[in-house]
Amino acid sequence: MHKLNTVAIVGSGLVGSGWALVFARAGATVRIFDGDAALRARAPARIRQMLLDMQGAGLVQDVEEPLSRITVCDTLAEAVGPADYIQESVLERVEVKQAVCAEIDAAMRPEAICGSSSSGIPASAFTEALRNRSRFLIAHPVNPPHLVPLVELVPAPWTDPAILPALRAAMEEWGQAPIVVKAEIEGFILNRLQGALLNEAWALYEAGLASAADIDLTVSQGLGLRWAFMGPFETIDLNAPGGIADYSARLAPLYHNIAVSRANPRPWSDAAIRGAEKERREVLPTDQLQERTDWRNRRLMALVAHLRSQPK
Amino acid sequence: MHKLNTVAIVGSGLVGSGWALVFARAGATVRIFDGDAALRARAPARIRQMLLDMQGAGLVQDVEEPLSRITVCDTLAEAVGPADYIQESVLERVEVKQAVCAEIDAAMRPEAICGSSSSGIPASAFTEALRNRSRFLIAHPVNPPHLVPLVELVPAPWTDPAILPALRAAMEEWGQAPIVVKAEIEGFILNRLQGALLNEAWALYEAGLASAADIDLTVSQGLGLRWAFMGPFETIDLNAPGGIADYSARLAPLYHNIAVSRANPRPWSDAAIRGAEKERREVLPTDQLQERTDWRNRRLMALVAHLRSQPK
Repeated sequence: MHKLNTVAIVGSGLVGSGWALVFARAGATVRIFDGDAALRARAPARIRQMLLDMQGAGLVQDVEEPLSRITVCDTLAEAVGPADYIQESVLERVEVKQAVCAEIDAAMRPEAICGSSSSGIPASAFTEALRNRSRFLIAHPVNPPHLVPLVELVPAPWTDPAILPALRAAMEEWGQAPIVVKAEIEGFILNRLQGALLNEAWALYEAGLASAADIDLTVSQGLGLRWAFMGPFETIDLNAPGGIADYSARLAPLYHNIAVSRANPRPWSDAAIRGAEKERREVLPTDQLQERTDWRNRRLMALVAHLRSQPK
Repeated sequence: MHKLNTVAIVGSGLVGSGWALVFARAGATVRIFDGDAALRARAPARIRQMLLDMQGAGLVQDVEEPLSRITVCDTLAEAVGPADYIQESVLERVEVKQAVCAEIDAAMRPEAICGSSSSGIPASAFTEALRNRSRFLIAHPVNPPHLVPLVELVPAPWTDPAILPALRAAMEEWGQAPIVVKAEIEGFILNRLQGALLNEAWALYEAGLASAADIDLTVSQGLGLRWAFMGPFETIDLNAPGGIADYSARLAPLYHNIAVSRANPRPWSDAAIRGAEKERREVLPTDQLQERTDWRNRRLMALVAHLRSQPK
């Protein structure tokens, strides 16, 4: 059992609120701070609504019990001081991360761990000067963290290596699915995989080979079905009689040709972006984006409930 | 309503049997031929088992009724002669496709349509010399076609363009999710998207940045959850307040950097393949591959039943 019983949330926007729910649901004591007093005051009501939505989808039993473990603090030091683990979820700008992490550094216990929700900026860009810099790393969630379990743990060069197995175990106990990215790389793992697929999708779209809607169907009615419960390596491991080596012997040349055909990458073009934006707005007008996002969250909750019910 | 009421299956392996189930389930008359007399004789029993499995998952009501529409034929001409639509699913080798399509060409009604299940060889490589070449195209399914609905329709340069909307409509009525690939491109759309993600996955694995298991988790516990019901474009359209153009303005530079970092692609290396094979066999010994494939199919059936129950 890990000893990370008290958790501080610094930054209580959508991501920070989702994190607060994750920790409280798992039984931790949660202390929330946000520099915006109105935002932090709204956090419990927002988390209550998330819990009610999850209760409706059969994902949590009780709403009030996890909420009772959440306290909103008036200062950062008050939130961070007693914490065993700190989840920083402030704005994704390096100077903001630097300033907030300096405050965390000053207030934290030296044995605490601080994970940053940064989706792109590596920890080395904003923790180098900290007294406790060996206790900082990236803990990048997918949005929203209370529905999508993946968390990327990415150390800076000076992160204490012992933190990785400890935080990995704690994240698993909290109900998340942590992975370890062994060194800093731009985009970490998740956004690199997403980006590779998106880059190909944009290139196909720009070449006029398929509509955005048809490219979406290729994933949602094809590739995505297996990827909802198996990763890409397990998928190909089960797609040839002799497993992944057999699959690779058959198909690696095709996939290499595909890579070579994209060896001169161009940025996503303005014309393609305008075209896809136009196609999307015909399907989904701007004033329905929020409604569709709510639909996505309901679909995610139902999918998570389904996936939990299945044999591993 | 389309008029493709009688369907011939040429090649009754796993893919052809899945296709026979798709058409029979939708009410079509199905005529099966395979050059291997033992294989074609086994097709009805194999399809009955697939239907029983689907019935167990709540995906079909009746097993005998669709089976009653399936006839096994002793010659290719007997299967193809009365067909409105022919689904060719023989071995993925160009000389085999050429020979079988020449036989289909000789036996088919001139107004019939022939779709090939080819996953990589374009129709232009084996239909150029045919009398009815304007009636041939690729109709590439995902395996197994009775569980994963996506079908890629890919014309050869000489395919009658009127076939595309007609076959697309028919595939939709048959319960599949067809897309139109507007011109021949290596890997079509599905395998290009899969390949882009796999190429990045292998590069990350080979660089030692993450284990194969952790890369798999990144998809199965992260990216794949949304992709099970939304494509990549809809996903990013809902991931920024202003939609896909807003998302692209923020993140296109990151994704372009990722593409540039892979602009010198190398083939999947033998060392990486051996490493991933070793890692997979520790998790899943060779003698359990079939059992795990059965698990995958049960999971797919349960997922398909879940997805069908959800609001679009």
